[in-house]
Amino acid sequence: MKRLADCRVAIVGLGLMGASLAMDLSQNNLCREVRGIARRTATVLDAFFAGAVDLATNDLTTGVMAADIVILATPVRTIVDMLGEIGPHLWPGTLVMDMGSTKSEICAALDQLPPGIQPIGGHPMTGKETAGFDAAETGLYRNATWVLTPLPRTSPDALCLATELVEAVGARPVVLPAERHDRLVAAISHLPFLAASALVHTTAQVGAGDPAVWELAAGGFRDTSRVAASDTRMFLDILMTNRPAVLAQLDAYLEQLSGLRGLLQAGDEATLQAKLSVSQAARAAWKPRR
Amino acid sequence: MKRLADCRVAIVGLGLMGASLAMDLSQNNLCREVRGIARRTATVLDAFFAGAVDLATNDLTTGVMAADIVILATPVRTIVDMLGEIGPHLWPGTLVMDMGSTKSEICAALDQLPPGIQPIGGHPMTGKETAGFDAAETGLYRNATWVLTPLPRTSPDALCLATELVEAVGARPVVLPAERHDRLVAAISHLPFLAASALVHTTAQVGAGDPAVWELAAGGFRDTSRVAASDTRMFLDILMTNRPAVLAQLDAYLEQLSGLRGLLQAGDEATLQAKLSVSQAARAAWKPRR
Repeated sequence: MKRLADCRVAIVGLGLMGASLAMDLSQNNLCREVRGIARRTATVLDAFFAGAVDLATNDLTTGVMAADIVILATPVRTIVDMLGEIGPHLWPGTLVMDMGSTKSEICAALDQLPPGIQPIGGHPMTGKETAGFDAAETGLYRNATWVLTPLPRTSPDALCLATELVEAVGARPVVLPAERHDRLVAAISHLPFLAASALVHTTAQVGAGDPAVWELAAGGFRDTSRVAASDTRMFLDILMTNRPAVLAQLDAYLEQLSGLRGLLQAGDEATLQAKLSVSQAARAAWKPRR
Repeated sequence: MKRLADCRVAIVGLGLMGASLAMDLSQNNLCREVRGIARRTATVLDAFFAGAVDLATNDLTTGVMAADIVILATPVRTIVDMLGEIGPHLWPGTLVMDMGSTKSEICAALDQLPPGIQPIGGHPMTGKETAGFDAAETGLYRNATWVLTPLPRTSPDALCLATELVEAVGARPVVLPAERHDRLVAAISHLPFLAASALVHTTAQVGAGDPAVWELAAGGFRDTSRVAASDTRMFLDILMTNRPAVLAQLDAYLEQLSGLRGLLQAGDEATLQAKLSVSQAARAAWKPRR
């Protein structure tokens, strides 16, 4: 069985997620070689001179050649496209993993890789609203939950190697089917993004008539709206590849909001208090992992 | 003209806001005396032995007697009730201020104080989701915006004294009419609270069928839902005393959300992208004061 220490790891996409992983792997000598593949030459050079990778290239084919582990860390639909491209260039036995935020479409594309390749889906549950190589940092994955979505064809050895990598950077692997992952992240990631975006639009509407709103906005608005500043391209891919689950969560959310609205409109204070107490207790009881 | 340094300041309510203010005033010797008035005897003793106040009592009448400045720092409707009580016990010229999160009803009640009393509304735009004396801290108001809502009867000297107090704890005073304040905070504070509460309810619904949702929830959910953990009683008062403005913002928010939902449902990627880019840019451009 392959061990991480013996592996050449090729990371495709050196934004926040890919570059942070590259830094963890290379700076802690967790594997034999870390390669970085990025579209923009500036990023390739940045990553190389920052010591985030041992080798860097903007040629996908060269980058993945003879790698033991290939990790795709680009927006979701770019991952799907690249999976169609890299297949013929991979060595038999290569572990192909990704870091995309939705899993169903990616797992379907992973399943199209040539036989002999070991595919597994992955999604670290962490991030920041700032994107790109400059936002990358070591230790980003420490204590984070990292979902792994093996395919029926994924061998136990491949799952072990993916698990070793996840644990090597301090994350906690959780194995889930792709569809179940997508349903859950629609609630705790994609819906919050849309809620934050709508909140910013609502505030901007007020601000158009009275710009003082931006002066008064403080910690409540800051946190509730934070994820709206996330990379649009990344989130567009997420939303478009998880539409049914996101629409279902949006509908559930709209129903909750309308319920609260109705109670406030009716002045039904007792029911409103009971309802707010439930969410107060649930949120106060939940402890974020980091 | 009275200076803060010569004033006996009585703070009614020693929760997060009142106790943090008491600590700033007493630990930096900003005034002649800091008195704390709390309903619960345990809080009275905690505040006294923690050195947050020079004097402490649970008797409202004794507490406000012969004070130069009285600051009410309880939930909004308790402030309104207490204003009806304390009037006869105040000395002429006393500055009566509050720290309530909505201002229209409070300013109406402030206006009922006996002639000779100097009333002014106040609202520091800061806070935490944790409440109570134990959550209090020095420096809570540093760099915060602190809205002041003078009444027509408020004298320039009284406004100056309130301004001196606000600036003494490092906050930035912003003078606004009560109704305008209430309209603005409906957007950046009350709506985010309801949005967060609805988000927690939506996630809890998913969690009832699949508890793994709480394991996957990370930074996005953490921040977007944070204010839902705020004190229910405090927020119930806020919502019930600002219903028309909150309902208007809720309607604007529901419209924004429905708009995003429609674009996603229709797969209208170009318009969705344009819409998300606007909120992305607006949120990334806004710099929180702290």
